[in-house]
Amino acid sequence: MSDTPDSVVRTYIQTHRAAFLADLADWLRIPSVSAHPDHDADVRRSADWLAAKLKETGFPVTEIWDTPGAPAVFAEWPSEDPEAPTVLVYGHHDVQPAAREDGWHTDPFEPVVRDGRMYARGAADDKGQVFFHTLGVRAHLAATGRTAPAVHLKLLVEGEEESGSPHFRALAEERAGRLAADVVIVSDTGMWSADTPTVCTGMRGLADCEIELYGPDQDIHSGSFGGAVPNPATVAARLVAALHDEHERVTVPGFYDGVAELTEAERALIAELPFDEEEWLRTAKSHGTLGEAGFSTLERVWARPTAEVNGIGGGYQGPGGKTIIPSSAQLKLSFRLVAGQDPDRIERSVRDWAEARIPAGIRHKISFGAATRPCLTPLDHPALQSLVRAMGRAFGQKIRFTREGGSGPAADLQDVLGAPVLFLGISVPSDGWHAPNEKVELDLLLKGVETTAHLWSELGAAPGPGTGPAR
Amino acid sequence: MSDTPDSVVRTYIQTHRAAFLADLADWLRIPSVSAHPDHDADVRRSADWLAAKLKETGFPVTEIWDTPGAPAVFAEWPSEDPEAPTVLVYGHHDVQPAAREDGWHTDPFEPVVRDGRMYARGAADDKGQVFFHTLGVRAHLAATGRTAPAVHLKLLVEGEEESGSPHFRALAEERAGRLAADVVIVSDTGMWSADTPTVCTGMRGLADCEIELYGPDQDIHSGSFGGAVPNPATVAARLVAALHDEHERVTVPGFYDGVAELTEAERALIAELPFDEEEWLRTAKSHGTLGEAGFSTLERVWARPTAEVNGIGGGYQGPGGKTIIPSSAQLKLSFRLVAGQDPDRIERSVRDWAEARIPAGIRHKISFGAATRPCLTPLDHPALQSLVRAMGRAFGQKIRFTREGGSGPAADLQDVLGAPVLFLGISVPSDGWHAPNEKVELDLLLKGVETTAHLWSELGAAPGPGTGPAR
Repeated sequence: MSDTPDSVVRTYIQTHRAAFLADLADWLRIPSVSAHPDHDADVRRSADWLAAKLKETGFPVTEIWDTPGAPAVFAEWPSEDPEAPTVLVYGHHDVQPAAREDGWHTDPFEPVVRDGRMYARGAADDKGQVFFHTLGVRAHLAATGRTAPAVHLKLLVEGEEESGSPHFRALAEERAGRLAADVVIVSDTGMWSADTPTVCTGMRGLADCEIELYGPDQDIHSGSFGGAVPNPATVAARLVAALHDEHERVTVPGFYDGVAELTEAERALIAELPFDEEEWLRTAKSHGTLGEAGFSTLERVWARPTAEVNGIGGGYQGPGGKTIIPSSAQLKLSFRLVAGQDPDRIERSVRDWAEARIPAGIRHKISFGAATRPCLTPLDHPALQSLVRAMGRAFGQKIRFTREGGSGPAADLQDVLGAPVLFLGISVPSDGWHAPNEKVELDLLLKGVETTAHLWSELGAAPGPGTGPAR
Repeated sequence: MSDTPDSVVRTYIQTHRAAFLADLADWLRIPSVSAHPDHDADVRRSADWLAAKLKETGFPVTEIWDTPGAPAVFAEWPSEDPEAPTVLVYGHHDVQPAAREDGWHTDPFEPVVRDGRMYARGAADDKGQVFFHTLGVRAHLAATGRTAPAVHLKLLVEGEEESGSPHFRALAEERAGRLAADVVIVSDTGMWSADTPTVCTGMRGLADCEIELYGPDQDIHSGSFGGAVPNPATVAARLVAALHDEHERVTVPGFYDGVAELTEAERALIAELPFDEEEWLRTAKSHGTLGEAGFSTLERVWARPTAEVNGIGGGYQGPGGKTIIPSSAQLKLSFRLVAGQDPDRIERSVRDWAEARIPAGIRHKISFGAATRPCLTPLDHPALQSLVRAMGRAFGQKIRFTREGGSGPAADLQDVLGAPVLFLGISVPSDGWHAPNEKVELDLLLKGVETTAHLWSELGAAPGPGTGPAR
């Protein structure tokens, strides 16, 4: 009996597994934190490391693309079939901040493998999920006997995703010709669970906002002046409290304008998933649910826009007390957006709303980072069907559908390139994105490798260029 | 023409001024910050320094009184006249925290004299105002030809006032026999201005509260979980926002129960003062007024109870953004209380109010420090009239009446000793209590010395023991 492509892929992956994981660990040792200028050199080192590794993998074109911020990595491996569709894989090589004292059991930048998991900042978000494309394309070649992939394969791995991708849209516009693709594969999401493989069909967008509030020119005595002058910490708190009504709906005027409401069919697909709220709460490390009235927990995180306070600070936070009216306070807010919401309009609405609520005597500064647009893939898209088949071969199971509450710059690629966006992610909710002790499940990581090995064949073999209308 | 007692006092003070200021500067160099355990040894050093200085001044009894917290200093100098009234002076030798980076122009613990002012943490609050009793009693003896004061003079200088005097009441109860007095002089307040000398007739009380709120077991991703679990920073903000209604009245049920409302006569005395709101705002380093509807700014800070947030913190406060739901948040609140309010009842009311507002899924811890009671001296009290006369001799002006928005443990002494409390303070609002660049006006400091030199004569000469009913 001759080997099937599926068994060749599996054997190839098993043979190269150890080297693949050792390489990934090397990359994870680079603390490519884009949010902090102290790590600028590390982010660049991470880009250089990845470009070199992609070259070693066989990509004939590997380039570092500088931006006004952190560099991106671009790689290209054309198919030998000029009629083959062009696929652009998107990921990022920067990571969230992490420090041992945040609650990590081990150094966040010294990967540790334990119980079939690799623990490190970026293990799942997103280095692990970018890295499976290296072994994946090699396994694809081994299984198909090709010397180049069945699709024109491009990779774009940016360095500022964790900082809101401030220069990503400009980069995509400037390099639109090089990036042109029939379909975009976003390799920066998750799936339901190890037992229930899923394809993600949409991500929320993100608008983040910092509000600085200035009251007295310095901290002043709360006895001598308390009760008679505005307190910036109180104003900060009142802004946060005013963000939601008693149904946990966001009160900013116009916030829900244009929101793509869930259809009954979409609600039914979500309700089909084996959702266990107790288990979800354990994953969320939370002790209760709270959210917009009229929606389930999954609907709240996948399909509803939100406003969250990520940080608040003002006045004395040390041990003991200090009876002051603080001189200043600050808020970091983020708004998750869903299809139909326009980040620019949200920014204007939030500014107007906040400014109207800041009393005389409190000066303020409101800053918004670069927004990330929401996006959504139609369930009937042919390329989505190819992805479902490739995952089905890797996992040997029915593939279901989810969405992702997090955000990525996928919608910018959809806009700029006019190409539909698919989400291929193998991370599971317990992976701890942005949290201490982030990890990736090694078995799932290798299923990701296997999926990509099949995906290029599925997309290459699909009738037409595997595209369809974006929405 | 022979020297009058007043001119002898003035000459004596001028002669000893330089040594007095040099000694005060030595004391101010000891960073006796009671709020932080790192400074425990400094607080003890401050007590030892003061006890030695009082002994050198001539007090035949000087003792360090240990408490479970920071030590107090007690000193006693009996009159030769057994019938003389007994006066207990109260002050404190601990200071608020201070760090150069808070906005100090010079080291807060290296006193600098510039333009007739001495700048240092504690210069006004309260070391300067304790220290004028050393030179004051010597000037009193010089002017009267006595070898002991005209009153039985006692000093109690505690070491935990800036931490809410947690052990003061117990100390006063335990040592009530030693502390017994006909009248208490609190040397820890201020007056209207350099041009308008005043006597303070009341202080607000203080109840301070820390609320810790715990949500997820660690910071979690605001994309993956945002909108579906309670956010402790949001809960903290909602508590602060709910503290006041739209009239800036405190909403905690029962908060205003028993409040001694201002009489029309008291409101008229307050309205007599040359109040300039623009100037007051400059002193408050604030850019607007805001407070309880129906009351003037002075009434708000002197005679109305308040709730202020002294500190709030939760989540990411560093540079850039971090899209998390924070694991915890904390609030430091303080409540200023006026005569008629009971700190114990306020504590119970605030606990009940807060607990009812914390949603399921958020664990909490609410801690109260030791409360400080409010107090108020009757305007017609004979000892108050003696104080007004002594100040009138020192300042050569009509003495008016104020209150003090700040808090001190005076009411505990009133309760425990059954003695009325008078306030002798020479600090002015621009002295910057609890703020960077705290200072004391040297001319006023010496008027304080002069006032005490006369006060012991005035009280000693008053008909009866100079007491009257406390209220």
